Amino acid sequence: MNSASTYLVIMAGGSGTRFWPKSTSRKPKQLLSFGDGDKSLLVETLERFDGIVPAKNRIIVTTQALQGAVAEQVSKDVTVLAEPQGRNTAPCVYWAARAIAERDPNAVMLVMPADHYIPKVDAFKRTLGEAMKWAQRLDDLVTLGVKPSRPETGYGYLKLGKNLKGEAVAVEAFVEKPNLEKAREFFKGGYLWNGGMFVWRAEVILKAFDQSMPEMKKAWDSSEGKVEAAYPKMTATSIDYGVMEKARNVVTFVLDCGWDDLGSWTSLEGIAEVLGAQKSGGVVTSGEVLAVDSSGNIVDAPKKLVALLGVRDLIVVESGDAILIADKSRAQDIRQIVDGVKKIRPELA
Amino acid sequence: MNSASTYLVIMAGGSGTRFWPKSTSRKPKQLLSFGDGDKSLLVETLERFDGIVPAKNRIIVTTQALQGAVAEQVSKDVTVLAEPQGRNTAPCVYWAARAIAERDPNAVMLVMPADHYIPKVDAFKRTLGEAMKWAQRLDDLVTLGVKPSRPETGYGYLKLGKNLKGEAVAVEAFVEKPNLEKAREFFKGGYLWNGGMFVWRAEVILKAFDQSMPEMKKAWDSSEGKVEAAYPKMTATSIDYGVMEKARNVVTFVLDCGWDDLGSWTSLEGIAEVLGAQKSGGVVTSGEVLAVDSSGNIVDAPKKLVALLGVRDLIVVESGDAILIADKSRAQDIRQIVDGVKKIRPELA
Repeated sequence: MNSASTYLVIMAGGSGTRFWPKSTSRKPKQLLSFGDGDKSLLVETLERFDGIVPAKNRIIVTTQALQGAVAEQVSKDVTVLAEPQGRNTAPCVYWAARAIAERDPNAVMLVMPADHYIPKVDAFKRTLGEAMKWAQRLDDLVTLGVKPSRPETGYGYLKLGKNLKGEAVAVEAFVEKPNLEKAREFFKGGYLWNGGMFVWRAEVILKAFDQSMPEMKKAWDSSEGKVEAAYPKMTATSIDYGVMEKARNVVTFVLDCGWDDLGSWTSLEGIAEVLGAQKSGGVVTSGEVLAVDSSGNIVDAPKKLVALLGVRDLIVVESGDAILIADKSRAQDIRQIVDGVKKIRPELA
Repeated sequence: MNSASTYLVIMAGGSGTRFWPKSTSRKPKQLLSFGDGDKSLLVETLERFDGIVPAKNRIIVTTQALQGAVAEQVSKDVTVLAEPQGRNTAPCVYWAARAIAERDPNAVMLVMPADHYIPKVDAFKRTLGEAMKWAQRLDDLVTLGVKPSRPETGYGYLKLGKNLKGEAVAVEAFVEKPNLEKAREFFKGGYLWNGGMFVWRAEVILKAFDQSMPEMKKAWDSSEGKVEAAYPKMTATSIDYGVMEKARNVVTFVLDCGWDDLGSWTSLEGIAEVLGAQKSGGVVTSGEVLAVDSSGNIVDAPKKLVALLGVRDLIVVESGDAILIADKSRAQDIRQIVDGVKKIRPELA
């Protein structure tokens, strides 16, 4: 495989409110480090492709607000594209695909989120290699499907079809986030998690766009490639909903690499071991905790001694000038807090 | 009344672990301010006696560790006595009584804790005035009994006997902290709270010591008034247990002044209004709180925005390099945390 014909597109526009106050609008999840090291998730994501995609073939798509912060963390050879406005993943993928196709329509394009956690890099690279070989040879939309470790309700699923050649499996359907009953059914039934990781040739995804979202080409061409003009005309939807769910040529490779999307503070519990988290009154991802009669808590307070007395299942986070104390069952509702903070102390949101 | 013959003794040796981390061993409760103002409880206590006892007749008894911090907060005319070791209140009162008796055995001596909260100062002064008149004329041990507002299990009680002249009432017995059933009985039965506030002439309390604790005089006289020598020989007990419970000449005046001993974080809830505390997710004694679906919490974090999400009945305190998160039902057990902090981060305890 010629690495010059491979491009990496990192989607790094997320606002990551669910890790507030550790994450803020100026420093969302992808720019933060979790666990022992001090490398951000974005930097770790990029390093995962060392030896696979050279820096000059790397494209990071982010927001204008984050452009500077992203550029600070990455090599100057990496292209940083700043979206004029957030319009979900479909416009972002379309833009990147057009940019790559201009250089080499035949290039293999890897589309990866910037803020996921992959501890077993060797396993990831091996499966990715298989997927890349497939995408190079065949006109398929390849997605990396994650082998589930539990009946998770927070992820979308891939319903599998026929086994194809080698490790490839046809995808019969993309399934939205299920309720717990459905999730258990999917878990038993061998469904995969949809991790939002894709591998395809630029010309193949552009053709799929033309079939499912022909308005994208019109918006782009009528704007003469000017992003500011094109973006407002493009449909704000996800690549999954806009393209993948409608396509008939979707193939997956099963990824078994400890993947986690780090969707909320509670997701850190599952990977506490690999993060090297201390255990005191629960999981301590950063800082020092003294716990008395306390359990099931998640604490991240790098600069403080946190004392817990008789408390259970709390999320405790100290960062900057803010402290969050949330019941663990409300981890997905931190957005409500962030919305409130924006009103009363916008500099902390 | 000649104010020159009145002395004030403030007992300010408490370690105040129950307000950790706001209170620490170097800055216990009596040196902290609660509520709007920035005056410490000690300073507020002293000011309560302006116009009643001149500075040169004021004696603060504290520990050697706190001597410097106390001296910083008070006028140079005030005498600061540093106990060589904490031996409960009986030795402290004995020492002060001997020191006063040397100057004027006939002097009226007011003994007051440094760390209580008295919002209605006028009512306090009025009742105190009555008690002082009584103590000046009669050889009784006068205590200020607090009119209870609830069946509190955290205080000792005074069982009343006959009504005497004016507002004076004989005390039949000192009763230890009761269980809830007993506390309800006492509340209905017109018992008073024992607030640890006493008024007597120096010679009267010394005579009571000689009757109930004759070893105190022996320890003192055999040490030729040298505190370092006397203290280890003195019985480490409370003035209540050592003297008051055994005396037959105890009289009380009923104090109705919003008194609170500020025994723990939860006691701040009862006086939230007078403290001017904000209400957001509960009572906010300091700092700013953003609360979503949260109630019954007590928050003190002067330098932080505290966000509460789906949490109830917590104590949240940020001070220095420590954060405490405790279930409110465990307010009395913060000592356990402080014991742990002493081991791992003694500078924060």
